[in-house]
Amino acid sequence: MSGAPIYKRVALIGLGLIASSMYWAMKRHGLAGEVTGFARSQETRATAREIGLCDRVCDSALDAVEGADLVVLCVPVGAMGGVASEIAPALKPGATVSDVGSVKKAVIEAVGPHLPEGVHFVPAHPLAGTEHSGPTSGFAELFENRWSLIVPVEGSDRAAVERVEQLWQGMGALTDEMDAEHHDLVLAVTSHAPHLIAYTMVGVADDLRRVTDSEVIKYSAAGFRDFTRIAASDPTMWRDVFLTNREATLEILGRFTEELFALQRAIRTGDGDHLFDYFTRTRAIRRGIIEAGQDTDAPDFGRVKKG
Amino acid sequence: MSGAPIYKRVALIGLGLIASSMYWAMKRHGLAGEVTGFARSQETRATAREIGLCDRVCDSALDAVEGADLVVLCVPVGAMGGVASEIAPALKPGATVSDVGSVKKAVIEAVGPHLPEGVHFVPAHPLAGTEHSGPTSGFAELFENRWSLIVPVEGSDRAAVERVEQLWQGMGALTDEMDAEHHDLVLAVTSHAPHLIAYTMVGVADDLRRVTDSEVIKYSAAGFRDFTRIAASDPTMWRDVFLTNREATLEILGRFTEELFALQRAIRTGDGDHLFDYFTRTRAIRRGIIEAGQDTDAPDFGRVKKG
Repeated sequence: MSGAPIYKRVALIGLGLIASSMYWAMKRHGLAGEVTGFARSQETRATAREIGLCDRVCDSALDAVEGADLVVLCVPVGAMGGVASEIAPALKPGATVSDVGSVKKAVIEAVGPHLPEGVHFVPAHPLAGTEHSGPTSGFAELFENRWSLIVPVEGSDRAAVERVEQLWQGMGALTDEMDAEHHDLVLAVTSHAPHLIAYTMVGVADDLRRVTDSEVIKYSAAGFRDFTRIAASDPTMWRDVFLTNREATLEILGRFTEELFALQRAIRTGDGDHLFDYFTRTRAIRRGIIEAGQDTDAPDFGRVKKG
Repeated sequence: MSGAPIYKRVALIGLGLIASSMYWAMKRHGLAGEVTGFARSQETRATAREIGLCDRVCDSALDAVEGADLVVLCVPVGAMGGVASEIAPALKPGATVSDVGSVKKAVIEAVGPHLPEGVHFVPAHPLAGTEHSGPTSGFAELFENRWSLIVPVEGSDRAAVERVEQLWQGMGALTDEMDAEHHDLVLAVTSHAPHLIAYTMVGVADDLRRVTDSEVIKYSAAGFRDFTRIAASDPTMWRDVFLTNREATLEILGRFTEELFALQRAIRTGDGDHLFDYFTRTRAIRRGIIEAGQDTDAPDFGRVKKG
């Protein structure tokens, strides 16, 4: 799979699930020459050195980005602006700065103003992840057959945009381009609202006085456990997502509540036809997702082993 | 694994996911002598005959239950009463009638009055299933390491109750006993409310005019697809669940809405600490479920293949 590297020098700022997966994927596919890394936490840097994550782990973000052709900000959305202002003086003219944040309008507003002229800004968002976080959670296959959305800003250099797309494609991802506003709405539907709803349902179950936690856990295979996976995602990351994609998330949650109330009323009034029709319609989306190769048709996500 | 069968003659009324899985599991483990089956739909009966589901597929429920030591009602909750009244005249004295309905109070009220004296009634509910339905969806391993709840009614014969428990244990399930009211509340939390919420979220995504269905499908790996699995479950079954476990489901949905509003307010007011604390708490439940052997720790439910 190796050809000429797409970037000679890549710097990863933040060394969690996404950055560590990018490192392993770039190395496997020969996409980058030297990859430097920096994490704010000394513990994370020590772990990274131990497991061989990055060719060189630096003790400052400035050191990490020095001479880099591509700098990828892999920190929680709320920390992007601070990091951008920190690294700005060390950015090489002609370098590209990208990020992997789950929200794009807020990141563009926070990062853009800090970048010096002659540095290209190409925001991106790989729609991939697991419920695990931290430097040891990454793996080279994370992005395979997953979408990575490229969100060019006004005046983004086409050559720089296309190089970032090639990098993601090289790591196995499919790529699409869209503007920041649409991105944030699409993600509010496909990711942010579902996560908040899952967090809420898990919190309710945990809270309920007449049903013990141990009952919730024992009997979770009846449906509940599907919610717990995404409600186990990184709390810092998700706090920042909701605070920075506030409007789109609240809009979708408003629509959700409206529908939920309509279904609750159907239950209360015994309107079985309304329920049946609704539940029939939602089956079609699942089929679409499976046909698009974005999930498995194996029962129970393939958790069940038939023998 | 085979020993003496627990029942000489078992009749399965309704031949969907649960009944077909019971058939394969009983046969594999030698738990039943002859197993008869009946389904209302002629097409289902034809499919059952084709794939060898049941030792004998009967064209009427009366024929199927004649001489049976155990009759298991595996029809949607709303159909249980009708089936019970239909089969009552043919039930053998001393036989046990059980069911696999997801709601217990309503089933007990619907079925109990039809059963003649001398017939034992032992309601049960295996907490196992997949998003697939119909006679071809069953498999012998469905119940392995899953809980089956036994919900004895007043005056249930102990020997009859224990025999039903043995049958479930023989099929690989863990068993617990609880009363109908508690069962319906526990299931409202662990199953019914999560299903309604998943159906709602999938419906909202499908409905949204500014985000196309194809975008929802392409980008579903960002979280949404976890909801689509349970929102692909059988519409008839779930309509009946909500209509018959109305009060407990509405109560949990009320608690859910309350929490969701509190989180929405935290987003609106920028209260990051509230969000962070909530999201940290919900991680613990996931760990509990994995430790209890009720889900996998593999990233993404094991959908992701590391190589």
